[in-house]
Amino acid sequence: MMKYKRKIYLQDTPRQEALNELLHHFTSERITETIRSTEALGRVTAHPVFAKMSNPHYHASAMDGIAVKAEETFSAHEQNPVQLKLGEGFVYVNTGNEIPSPYNAVIMIEYVDEIDEETVEIIEPASPWQHIRPIGEDIIQEEMLFPQGHKIRPVDIGVLLASQVIEVPVVKKPVVSIIPTGDELVFPNGETPPGKLVEFNGSVMVNYIREWGGEPALSAIVKDRPEEIREKLLDAVEASDIVIINAGSSAGSEDYTVHIIEELGEVFTHGVATRPGKPVILGRIKDKIVIGLPGYPVSAYLDLEWFVQPLICDYLQIPVPKRETLTVKLGRRIVGTMGAEDFIRMSIGYVNGEYIANPLPRAAGVTMSLVKADGMLLIPAHSLGYEQGESVEIELLKPRSEIKQAIVFNGSHDLSIDLLSSRLKEQDYSTKIISSHVGSMAGLMAIKKGEAHIAGTHLLDPETNTYNVPYIKRFLAGQEVVLYPFLKRKQGWLVPKGNPLGIETVKDIIEKEAHFVNRQKGAGTRILFDMLLKEAGLSSEEIAGYQREMFSHLSVAAEVKVDEKAVGLGIYSAAKTMELDFIPVSDESYELLMTKEFFESVQGQKLIEVIQSDCFRQDVLAIGGYEVMDHPEPVYFS
Amino acid sequence: MMKYKRKIYLQDTPRQEALNELLHHFTSERITETIRSTEALGRVTAHPVFAKMSNPHYHASAMDGIAVKAEETFSAHEQNPVQLKLGEGFVYVNTGNEIPSPYNAVIMIEYVDEIDEETVEIIEPASPWQHIRPIGEDIIQEEMLFPQGHKIRPVDIGVLLASQVIEVPVVKKPVVSIIPTGDELVFPNGETPPGKLVEFNGSVMVNYIREWGGEPALSAIVKDRPEEIREKLLDAVEASDIVIINAGSSAGSEDYTVHIIEELGEVFTHGVATRPGKPVILGRIKDKIVIGLPGYPVSAYLDLEWFVQPLICDYLQIPVPKRETLTVKLGRRIVGTMGAEDFIRMSIGYVNGEYIANPLPRAAGVTMSLVKADGMLLIPAHSLGYEQGESVEIELLKPRSEIKQAIVFNGSHDLSIDLLSSRLKEQDYSTKIISSHVGSMAGLMAIKKGEAHIAGTHLLDPETNTYNVPYIKRFLAGQEVVLYPFLKRKQGWLVPKGNPLGIETVKDIIEKEAHFVNRQKGAGTRILFDMLLKEAGLSSEEIAGYQREMFSHLSVAAEVKVDEKAVGLGIYSAAKTMELDFIPVSDESYELLMTKEFFESVQGQKLIEVIQSDCFRQDVLAIGGYEVMDHPEPVYFS
Repeated sequence: MMKYKRKIYLQDTPRQEALNELLHHFTSERITETIRSTEALGRVTAHPVFAKMSNPHYHASAMDGIAVKAEETFSAHEQNPVQLKLGEGFVYVNTGNEIPSPYNAVIMIEYVDEIDEETVEIIEPASPWQHIRPIGEDIIQEEMLFPQGHKIRPVDIGVLLASQVIEVPVVKKPVVSIIPTGDELVFPNGETPPGKLVEFNGSVMVNYIREWGGEPALSAIVKDRPEEIREKLLDAVEASDIVIINAGSSAGSEDYTVHIIEELGEVFTHGVATRPGKPVILGRIKDKIVIGLPGYPVSAYLDLEWFVQPLICDYLQIPVPKRETLTVKLGRRIVGTMGAEDFIRMSIGYVNGEYIANPLPRAAGVTMSLVKADGMLLIPAHSLGYEQGESVEIELLKPRSEIKQAIVFNGSHDLSIDLLSSRLKEQDYSTKIISSHVGSMAGLMAIKKGEAHIAGTHLLDPETNTYNVPYIKRFLAGQEVVLYPFLKRKQGWLVPKGNPLGIETVKDIIEKEAHFVNRQKGAGTRILFDMLLKEAGLSSEEIAGYQREMFSHLSVAAEVKVDEKAVGLGIYSAAKTMELDFIPVSDESYELLMTKEFFESVQGQKLIEVIQSDCFRQDVLAIGGYEVMDHPEPVYFS
Repeated sequence: MMKYKRKIYLQDTPRQEALNELLHHFTSERITETIRSTEALGRVTAHPVFAKMSNPHYHASAMDGIAVKAEETFSAHEQNPVQLKLGEGFVYVNTGNEIPSPYNAVIMIEYVDEIDEETVEIIEPASPWQHIRPIGEDIIQEEMLFPQGHKIRPVDIGVLLASQVIEVPVVKKPVVSIIPTGDELVFPNGETPPGKLVEFNGSVMVNYIREWGGEPALSAIVKDRPEEIREKLLDAVEASDIVIINAGSSAGSEDYTVHIIEELGEVFTHGVATRPGKPVILGRIKDKIVIGLPGYPVSAYLDLEWFVQPLICDYLQIPVPKRETLTVKLGRRIVGTMGAEDFIRMSIGYVNGEYIANPLPRAAGVTMSLVKADGMLLIPAHSLGYEQGESVEIELLKPRSEIKQAIVFNGSHDLSIDLLSSRLKEQDYSTKIISSHVGSMAGLMAIKKGEAHIAGTHLLDPETNTYNVPYIKRFLAGQEVVLYPFLKRKQGWLVPKGNPLGIETVKDIIEKEAHFVNRQKGAGTRILFDMLLKEAGLSSEEIAGYQREMFSHLSVAAEVKVDEKAVGLGIYSAAKTMELDFIPVSDESYELLMTKEFFESVQGQKLIEVIQSDCFRQDVLAIGGYEVMDHPEPVYFS
């Protein structure tokens, strides 16, 4: 099955240039449809819209009171009350009532003295037209309410109806067909066997397109067979304004897409100068735009935004929405690709009065990085990147207020942190814990650099056999921090169900030729394992798998789960969650290091309150392997 | 029909206090429903959501190439190529394929030399696990994907599906019933007779509630009869989480609402310390929140946002979204109400590098002011307001980029400006003309104060019988502005069809006892009328209606339309649009005054291009009564 043309090299066309050419070729006919104004939310006007009736469309009372002839009241004052007769000198009116001729002013009911059923007395004159809403006070018949290209909001529906515009001409939503291709894909229903992948890019695209105002049409999955792809493409261009095919846009043996589009139509661009998102195909078949999106999710969604959203907006005659931006300080150096734009997903924390941003994983396959991203940093094609501490402007993917409110948790991860986050959010919907699992040492460094409010840490000092304190004294000397003794938890061997190799000690790992699943340098668990090695007088070189690093207890457990010969070191809760066996090795202190400022803040104290609450303690105890410290004494350092 | 209890005086409860009490009483049971993840866009998670499968859920190739055993490649280099046999030393893999055991590294196809069908040669070693996406690279089974209270975005649907979360628990949308009441209301269908008003508040509320994540239920219109209102309220509280009744919340003779809620349940608040929005009722019936909203649209929508949105967010466990803010300079003094918060709808222009904001009409019945508003200024209860030139922070109702791009048009209005705006927008979707109709003199002042880019002006100087130039020299001395001769147009008498009074001259107005519909001071048309009066040797005191002022040609025409004895002075296009008769009086120059900076900008030159385009000229000529100047010479002043 090895194929001709495997070694295609993609272009590096500048993104804006590729987009301009694409827009130039986009000639899909813009269709207008007339819909009820009550159903028009979010739709876009196709033509200017003019009022068909004034609002109010008669002279209306603006108050509850009486309508009078102003000139008959001019002489009224406290010493000279004027009496008026019902039906001759006045009529009662409520707010919104028509002012009958010849009345031309309204007096508020509060200023009216009712003498009898027929007679009222007033002691102040009314000026002509007072408390009357004249015809057209709000909307004048024939005035332009909206130009074309206006996206209709709730209040706009009000003025449409108020001015008798019961139906409104809007631009039909452009139809965007999405064709998922790939022998390995299955739609999300039930089990997914190894070698098969759930098709989810299509569902994500459907929802982006919907948000942008298009009409998505997700087709069945097409196998990696050129004749099937060809047929499907020809069908889709008939029924759509834009066609997306995903994936097959790179240069693999089954990446037929570019050849088929070339054969049936024309390819303008194959490859843009961006990372991720490079392997995109922009072309057309029969005057319809066809876009081949890459298979990696992050690449696919970015290309979708860069190339499909502008087409939809162009069709609707609206500008492409711009995201809010924020100036942030970079927590570390970020390197760019010379000659291509780099788009870096960033997490942002508001710590010590500053917005600090750090890059999330850059791999195009890590969808979670896009889920977690607070913002997107663009490194231009001509730049090599930015230095640590530099101020840069980034596009926000989440509201600024949400970013500002978030508690940034860093360091060693523990499953209880998720439970804590959830309980805290119950108390205050606007607070959440944003956690990144980088290991205890990296957590300490994040506190040192002002990038986090809290770090989870369980660093055992082999010299003193104590946790955390020696490390804080060594690495955070002079900084005002607080160590909160949070949990005691069990560390042990994570082994497949039944412990097939019979692992009990670190020596067993070598003797039974187990595959060890290790943690990254600086992780508390790694330090513990190295200590166990040292105590046993063994060398890391004897441990198969020692070089490969996992970044969390759950990743270790996930690896152990699929390999009968595997063993890892980790916490009880990970073993339980992944249904592994657990051989206890030691008890350890998992503690929370916080900036003093955060610890003493309202948010910090609320966090402590939740930690000490009955419901949280029960959550943690229910997992097993934990002991929550009861109102422990926080330790201050400075 | 005069009623007991007409003189109810409303409370002035602080808004936040009223809201806190309301939230305290909101006890509607939060219900969870499980829906397909593919349908979950915009829904809110009811519980934390955990991954059911890792992604990838097997070790997957990250590249197209060959899978090898890394240790068998260690000796490869240019002088010592290593040959591998298919099925023994390597297998072909495409991106996403499973790496079969015992292979543990991938070499990209570009670095593979294919010797024959069975054999490949490599010249570089592979390191273990290179180009392999390990299990869980993206998502690890059992990790928390989202906490409760997370609003699902398109990319979130991707990680749900990728981790085999096919169904997701979300909070049921809270049901918000809306009961429109009022004898004068009719649903928007066909004609609306005088004294009747189109019910549109309900449709606006439906759409706000939908946007905020609630499930609106708009009921039939209920007549102003206590027994009907009572019955409807009791039905609604059974079927809803929140009930809105609109209107009847103030103190009119038919405002039964507060009495009925008190009778059936409890009223917490009747009247809040805000302008607009004061007459709101907050209460409950049978443990369900009942809110009586005022009838005036602007009051109703603000109260809806202040009191109903927080309830919906509370139900969904999400924070109330915050709007972006912008610091602007005030174009004029704005006065507040002592003891109450004032919410002022503002228009914002970006002129000469500064954001300048001016208040829009404050009347609670002017829905268009909310449609047009770029932002909302809050004057706190303890403040008397702000001075002209002061910098204040305002909440944005439109995107900042849209505000920054807009061309601010001020001064005298002409119907051709709408056509111009529409043609300009055709060329560039992101540019639009925001116009306010304030009259020629006010337009000149707006240019002088840096509040507008363009002003429409037709100021006749009686001394010299010339237009605009004498005024510019007098009032804008020393400022760099450009006058662009735009149109010649006809001014004349606007009279009802058939000219029943036979108006020909200004003298006829007095002699035939016509009702004159006047324009505001500073309007070019007002100056023209005053000149006509003076020429005829007549006094304004002899003109019935002279004191009352209209702010546009269309408002004058709308008044004339409903009064057989009316006459106004205005342009031909207004008469034509409103189907009135037109008796020509004079030809005048309607010109565009611009800041020099704007005139010479790219936007300014594009505007001139559109003015001179064939399609725009044809638009204007099609109305009649106009002559578009052909490539006129702009006049510079400084």
